[in-house]
Amino acid sequence: MALVLADDMLGRALQRVQREVDAAFDAILPVPDDPRARLVEAMRYATIGGGKRVRPFLVITVAEMYGASRSAAIQAGCAIEAIHVYSLIHDDLPCMDDDAMRHGKPTLHIAFDEAIAVLAGDCLHDLAFELLTGPEIGPDPFIRAELCGALARASGHNGMAGGQVMDMAAAQQTFDLQGVTRLQQLKTGALLMAAVEMGAILGRVPEEARAHLRAYARDIGVAFQIADDLLDHEGDEAKAGKALRKDAEQGKATFVSLMGAEKAREQARFLSEQAVGHLAGHGKEAEVLRALARFVVEREG
Amino acid sequence: MALVLADDMLGRALQRVQREVDAAFDAILPVPDDPRARLVEAMRYATIGGGKRVRPFLVITVAEMYGASRSAAIQAGCAIEAIHVYSLIHDDLPCMDDDAMRHGKPTLHIAFDEAIAVLAGDCLHDLAFELLTGPEIGPDPFIRAELCGALARASGHNGMAGGQVMDMAAAQQTFDLQGVTRLQQLKTGALLMAAVEMGAILGRVPEEARAHLRAYARDIGVAFQIADDLLDHEGDEAKAGKALRKDAEQGKATFVSLMGAEKAREQARFLSEQAVGHLAGHGKEAEVLRALARFVVEREG
Repeated sequence: MALVLADDMLGRALQRVQREVDAAFDAILPVPDDPRARLVEAMRYATIGGGKRVRPFLVITVAEMYGASRSAAIQAGCAIEAIHVYSLIHDDLPCMDDDAMRHGKPTLHIAFDEAIAVLAGDCLHDLAFELLTGPEIGPDPFIRAELCGALARASGHNGMAGGQVMDMAAAQQTFDLQGVTRLQQLKTGALLMAAVEMGAILGRVPEEARAHLRAYARDIGVAFQIADDLLDHEGDEAKAGKALRKDAEQGKATFVSLMGAEKAREQARFLSEQAVGHLAGHGKEAEVLRALARFVVEREG
Repeated sequence: MALVLADDMLGRALQRVQREVDAAFDAILPVPDDPRARLVEAMRYATIGGGKRVRPFLVITVAEMYGASRSAAIQAGCAIEAIHVYSLIHDDLPCMDDDAMRHGKPTLHIAFDEAIAVLAGDCLHDLAFELLTGPEIGPDPFIRAELCGALARASGHNGMAGGQVMDMAAAQQTFDLQGVTRLQQLKTGALLMAAVEMGAILGRVPEEARAHLRAYARDIGVAFQIADDLLDHEGDEAKAGKALRKDAEQGKATFVSLMGAEKAREQARFLSEQAVGHLAGHGKEAEVLRALARFVVEREG
């Protein structure tokens, strides 16, 4: 994945999170000396060295803005990334989206096999909750329980996985703009909101400030998805590191098919600026969040 | 699933748990009026009206022995059953064990389709942690966090799913008795131990008593698996509600292939009596746990 912002503040902050998340997964997933070795190698293949790490970045940035320990936030960031990665592994399976490339390398069921892909996804799914209840998170059981609850609610049938089912139905059904927005709020938005929420839980952020952070997350979630639709419509497969033009092939309604590319681009920029507006109560410490809101609509991968 | 003990104390206690778990899943999983309807119908198909409910029974029985609320224990019981059921759904997939029957009816990917089976499994996996962090569990965050941790550790790559990978390797590799025991302790034992542990967490059981309960769970876990191997070897497919004789076909080492049927049966009975011995500090309130230890080795399905 080519990061276009490698030498600015956001680029440096994202790269730091990428290094920390890679190092954490490397430490969390030692390869056992028994027949589970291949499973754990598959979990490492999927988690180490790929992806922008937007969700851990949100967890860590929000947590640190409110004084939480960075090591706890990295752990929670790895938990939400484990959920994100497991969902990509299962989405890529032949019986689902049947994708062969992800983050510029063969998908897990190609590099290993389907059975390992199902099980490695399942194990990453568990790992998320193991990390959130582990000692790195700190001694407060309230924080551990709240983190587990926020992540579980965002990823199941009322969140990410529910959105994935609606997305599968999108090839058969006709969704209008409201339908697509609802679908994407579940499929992508719920987990991005959970990332900010988890940072807020770690930072013990008061409810009023939390509402602004949620509004920020909601807006960048939709902006992120519109940008994804635009990438699918007109992006460069080499930069994206995966197959594109799949939505049109499958006749799926997207923001771009419903609004047209120009209107969609305008809407993404509007939401990005609106997201920045929700951070008005914050000073310089939120500057990377503002930069992220602008980055998600301009990215090329 | 034919229960052979329908008119005795254990049979009545198991049937009560079965009714409670069915009713709880029915209430927890209302079918939404949107394209996720089919997903939730699949989750209901897999969770309502099937299975012995041994894991919820252990959670509820231990929790109640120590005065915890039955409604909280039912909720936690549904959480561990959701994990058990998701693992069966994924294990039955064509790329895994490729099974067509489960609990006397078509497996989920046959009754629905493979994509829905993957996703319904994933959603049940999440539901477990949603239930454990929900309001029914009670106000103590320590209990919620401990329940999540115990379940996550038991089900991931160091527990149930790790055992499943070892089981897949068992067709290629030669396991000795120690290897098979280790495999089964992960594949089946970890979740049975977690069931007892979760009951103990809800009942705030002191550490010494908890150690005895864990020893009980370890013994019935191995006894349960030996009985399963015996069923696979010589059972009745109609009573079992699933295909049998698969281990021998695949050339897998099992307790029966390594020890012979008679020796295996003796060992199961020995473990069952040893399990009962671990309950020596308890009175009449543990009588159903003693009956369960005897039932797991004599069952026909």
